[in-house]
Amino acid sequence: MKVLLIGGNGFIGSHLADKLLAEGHYVRIFDVSYERYRIQLPNVDYRISPIQSIPDLYESMLGIDIVFHLASASVPSTSGIDVVNEVNQNLISTLSILDLAVKLKVKKFVYFSSGGAVYGIPETSPISEDHHIRPISSYGIIKSTIENYLSFYQRTYGLNTLILRPSNPYGPRQGHFLAQGVISTFLRNLKTGNSFTVYGDGTATKDYIFISDLVNICYNISIGDHTGVYNIGSGIGTSIKEIISIIEAVTDKKANVIFAESKNYDVSNFILDITKISKDQLAKPEYSLEKGISKVWNWVLETESIH
Amino acid sequence: MKVLLIGGNGFIGSHLADKLLAEGHYVRIFDVSYERYRIQLPNVDYRISPIQSIPDLYESMLGIDIVFHLASASVPSTSGIDVVNEVNQNLISTLSILDLAVKLKVKKFVYFSSGGAVYGIPETSPISEDHHIRPISSYGIIKSTIENYLSFYQRTYGLNTLILRPSNPYGPRQGHFLAQGVISTFLRNLKTGNSFTVYGDGTATKDYIFISDLVNICYNISIGDHTGVYNIGSGIGTSIKEIISIIEAVTDKKANVIFAESKNYDVSNFILDITKISKDQLAKPEYSLEKGISKVWNWVLETESIH
Repeated sequence: MKVLLIGGNGFIGSHLADKLLAEGHYVRIFDVSYERYRIQLPNVDYRISPIQSIPDLYESMLGIDIVFHLASASVPSTSGIDVVNEVNQNLISTLSILDLAVKLKVKKFVYFSSGGAVYGIPETSPISEDHHIRPISSYGIIKSTIENYLSFYQRTYGLNTLILRPSNPYGPRQGHFLAQGVISTFLRNLKTGNSFTVYGDGTATKDYIFISDLVNICYNISIGDHTGVYNIGSGIGTSIKEIISIIEAVTDKKANVIFAESKNYDVSNFILDITKISKDQLAKPEYSLEKGISKVWNWVLETESIH
Repeated sequence: MKVLLIGGNGFIGSHLADKLLAEGHYVRIFDVSYERYRIQLPNVDYRISPIQSIPDLYESMLGIDIVFHLASASVPSTSGIDVVNEVNQNLISTLSILDLAVKLKVKKFVYFSSGGAVYGIPETSPISEDHHIRPISSYGIIKSTIENYLSFYQRTYGLNTLILRPSNPYGPRQGHFLAQGVISTFLRNLKTGNSFTVYGDGTATKDYIFISDLVNICYNISIGDHTGVYNIGSGIGTSIKEIISIIEAVTDKKANVIFAESKNYDVSNFILDITKISKDQLAKPEYSLEKGISKVWNWVLETESIH
């Protein structure tokens, strides 16, 4: 299959590209810049351009079977500061991309939403796909609006859409520059001897999934005959305190942790219900946190800090 | 109180202005044009300008206590054709208005959402305020996104917000030019001897509320110490067939009805649960359909068709 990854040079995109290449697919990547931690891959057709460039997006979508849309100009922590700009950069650009996908008769459109941001304050735990959608961050509001438009384009124009709601992925090549990726941030700070800051008292649980597990499940859902919405997570809640214990055990180092007031854009406890992916036999998470964190630690030790 | 009605020269806005003036409030109206069916009211401070004009919006909000935001550049039937433009015209403009409301310390911000468009296909009947939000039209997607941003502005900036979800209002001065207002459209066509088209088989029920009832309830909620979300409807489902019977009885004329295929942007059966407004004793609907339709019929007979 011919696959386009929009935002394919980011953390998740780069691993998904590896998986797609390993499975023998043609991979094209549209992104505003190249990968941060690797040189260009020999078998990828790169198209480097801003996401506002409709002609470049058009050309990048020519002959493509599946589009994976992973681009986002904001993350939860940077979101909400200039919402007009955020809506323009994320929502408007995605609507233009959807128009192109319809025009160019793309066979499937896969959108990376957010398990952590679209549900809002959980009413139940774990959170299944039909939980209410009441996002509390601007990031989550835009993600859920895009989800609604995907269903609208499916109903109105017959575009075959798939919505993925990942939990908190972690793994090698995760940046630490935009307050995403608590595990890689902690490990980097441990390497350099810096302290790291925990917002809240460290008891808030999140659903962490190792990047290979996430990418394998995404791949199986997307290549198979699936549409609709899928949670992708480990289905297990782990607190920051437990993460710190595991990190200390894996690295054999003592962490220097500073506790600070929690931030209001963050949902405190959050675990995804992964019954749907399990039931559809779309592979299940295989990495334990110990195994996954040890992979990230090896990567952190090998990698020079770029910024 | 000093009140600004954004979109105050539309159908609902013009009645709300009457109510506010009758109650002794200072009324300013920001709209792109004047009222369609009346000359300018002597006691209203009109500000005629496009909604994209931030400086004019800024000036119109100076000294204002309560903002009612009723402006919408689209209705369900016109929506979804150019979604990028629709998002720009409705969502982006509303975000700019919210920014101004925060900056100018407006005491309350009342948003007219849509009971018919935000819930999507009803899972229960009647539909209460905590029913899932899964809009199926672009119109409804934008309304629900704006609702989410209202809550976001309340949480983040302390803006006091109120979301009203009216059902299907009808009454004098309702236009018939944008496929909204089935009752006034039918009555106009009956006056001129034209047929009128019903989409579907006429059994689909909607929740009709007479404009004075709607406006009185809106007024009571907005002037009182209420925030959050309120359904405003009659709580009664009436089919198009029943509407036609009532119209024939009220006008003593035989209707010439053409049945056509139903449209996909419309939810077929929809009745609002109005327990919340009843419980909070915020007035209840007083007009029967017979009484309300007879008021509209008198207005239609008196009024020359402008377009």
